[in-house]
Amino acid sequence: MSDKRLLDTKRPTPLASSGALLQHIRLGLAFTRADLAALTGAARSTVSQRVDALIAAALVYEAGDGVSTGGRPPTVLAFNGDAGVVLTADLGATHSSFGVHDLNGVALARRGADLGIADGPEVVLASVLGILEELLHESGRSPTQVRGVGVGLPGPVEFASGTAVHPPIMPGWDGFPVPPHIQQHFDVPVLVDNDVNIMALGEYWTEWRDAVEDLIFVKVGTGIGSGIIVAGQIHRGAQGAAGDLGHVQLMGRTELCRCGNRGCVEAVAGGAALARSLTEGGTPASTARDVVELARGGNATAVRLIREAGRNLGEVLAGAVNFFNPAVIVMGGDVTAADQSLLAGVREVVYQRSTSLATQHLQIVRSRLGDRAGITGAAVMVIEHLLAPAAVDRQLETAVTG
Amino acid sequence: MSDKRLLDTKRPTPLASSGALLQHIRLGLAFTRADLAALTGAARSTVSQRVDALIAAALVYEAGDGVSTGGRPPTVLAFNGDAGVVLTADLGATHSSFGVHDLNGVALARRGADLGIADGPEVVLASVLGILEELLHESGRSPTQVRGVGVGLPGPVEFASGTAVHPPIMPGWDGFPVPPHIQQHFDVPVLVDNDVNIMALGEYWTEWRDAVEDLIFVKVGTGIGSGIIVAGQIHRGAQGAAGDLGHVQLMGRTELCRCGNRGCVEAVAGGAALARSLTEGGTPASTARDVVELARGGNATAVRLIREAGRNLGEVLAGAVNFFNPAVIVMGGDVTAADQSLLAGVREVVYQRSTSLATQHLQIVRSRLGDRAGITGAAVMVIEHLLAPAAVDRQLETAVTG
Repeated sequence: MSDKRLLDTKRPTPLASSGALLQHIRLGLAFTRADLAALTGAARSTVSQRVDALIAAALVYEAGDGVSTGGRPPTVLAFNGDAGVVLTADLGATHSSFGVHDLNGVALARRGADLGIADGPEVVLASVLGILEELLHESGRSPTQVRGVGVGLPGPVEFASGTAVHPPIMPGWDGFPVPPHIQQHFDVPVLVDNDVNIMALGEYWTEWRDAVEDLIFVKVGTGIGSGIIVAGQIHRGAQGAAGDLGHVQLMGRTELCRCGNRGCVEAVAGGAALARSLTEGGTPASTARDVVELARGGNATAVRLIREAGRNLGEVLAGAVNFFNPAVIVMGGDVTAADQSLLAGVREVVYQRSTSLATQHLQIVRSRLGDRAGITGAAVMVIEHLLAPAAVDRQLETAVTG
Repeated sequence: MSDKRLLDTKRPTPLASSGALLQHIRLGLAFTRADLAALTGAARSTVSQRVDALIAAALVYEAGDGVSTGGRPPTVLAFNGDAGVVLTADLGATHSSFGVHDLNGVALARRGADLGIADGPEVVLASVLGILEELLHESGRSPTQVRGVGVGLPGPVEFASGTAVHPPIMPGWDGFPVPPHIQQHFDVPVLVDNDVNIMALGEYWTEWRDAVEDLIFVKVGTGIGSGIIVAGQIHRGAQGAAGDLGHVQLMGRTELCRCGNRGCVEAVAGGAALARSLTEGGTPASTARDVVELARGGNATAVRLIREAGRNLGEVLAGAVNFFNPAVIVMGGDVTAADQSLLAGVREVVYQRSTSLATQHLQIVRSRLGDRAGITGAAVMVIEHLLAPAAVDRQLETAVTG
């Protein structure tokens, strides 16, 4: 090792395995074989051989001629998003969303349905499978084209096994193994995650990934939760419980929370808490949606309560901003969708209470995907798993040698 | 893509490039050529060829014979930690630590020195370079063996450029480009980071990486700060400001903080704040170290104040635990080192205030590395950068084709 240049590099060159080449094409880093050779430093013959393997596996196709720089124009390579489909289900407490997506994540068909998660896994998953089969048929694809399934659940999930862990609003689901149940119908990889995590991923992937590395997605509906993206990936935490902002305590508050503690921000600023406050003040409201309707209708008390909820949530988010230093906070959920009051309250307190360095370029914005965030994120989660370079490499090697 | 097994994998097979093979050997995932072939699925001949390249580059050597399973015993491969050295400097406000490390991160020589960071970058870095050259000589290595330099600074750092950003206690350092200055003496990669970040990395790498993925390191000295490890990597945040727990505000507190805000936990529970409280109570103390000495000597007021500081810090950490769901919180810094009081106060509040799921397996422990955490982490940061698979691959390709 006499050559001191050895190891002397700040930005490592991208890898050049077949799976890595596919990744470069998918991410738009390279459009031709020459691009791939230049990007990775691999020999042109090596690149051509590996691209041929990707074409043989129908993962890449030749999309036509590029611009010539003298001589024969180079062939433009493209990822074949039609190489299969992914099914998604974002299950909420009472309302769920479903989708069929191509391998670019584009929804070929989608649908909402009212399902009561409290009916238990057997009943709910039977409905889920029925709806997914109908949707698949509607999209004109066949069951043999399904490559994976992504599911979001409204509670903590142990990601490795795909099971809910002590979910507070999901009777019967604790420890129920979701993937094997779904695999009886679709024998493909099934990934299950917390619903706010996949919403965060959907929003990140669709709107933010070219601009930032990290993001916090905060959902304010009946309850309050968040999903965290670090370096483009969902951060799940040691117990799959990361993002549980709703049960951070506001000092000096004593409202009883459904978790058993007192003063949790969810018990003060969640949609259910706002409905209770309105009712106590003489304006009947039983759900977060009622509160939203009142605010949309111009009810001054509802608007004031939502703004105050934003301030209380801002107290908690100010700490998260100092700790995590995100580039973006995306606010979603019914209460956020009502009007600008919640966002205004959050901004007011976060910009006042967090350090000036952490808020220097911080954006606090509303979700652009709305109720599509969950299925979009579930599709991204499954596609990135299926098309991870090492996964593609192994399968191509299996195809060659097996 | 008619074969449905294509893409059907949950745990991708490790990559088989030369750099990846080196990584597998370093991490102890494989000890022989046969191990590497089995682990990666690559052909035995391919593995042998790539291992030969690693041996030619002196990054790997044949360490002897392994255990035979019949026939000729396989040759055991080992990473050559002597292929170079890394220099480290962990600069504090008034005290700094320095090291010379082999490429396994083992310190061949180390030293502490009193340097005033407020003397400015020109003066301080001249001393740093002088000390590093002495230490290098002491370790019996030559300047040509230096492969990289890692530096920790006591303030926010823009990692990409290696410059401090508005550091509150470092007059003259704002925007000063540290790497080019050091590269005038050592023409190798120079990485600069916040001191608490590298302490977190050092503690993670030495004590925790086999057991957990994520960790929070909290330093309680004169001030309060933290470093965050996510999936084994330092999380720096959008402005390099992640981990700034010291300026999370405690509701209802009004103590003026050096940052200009009021009620920051650092202004209530940091070492400087404790010294002030002691002085006001009639026991003169001017620094965090004075407080520590008093507590070690059995002063009841100092012990009580430290315990109360732990409770206040616990309020802030309880929120971070709900949000981030770490597996471990490691507490370091002078005030932590004093006795068990700070840890007891932190535990008391975190286990009471965080959700039961997030604290189910949470460990809150004292730093085991003490003042070696910083230089250890700086060495790890540089070594992992130098030996990243893509970096090694590129340099081996350069060596072959260039």
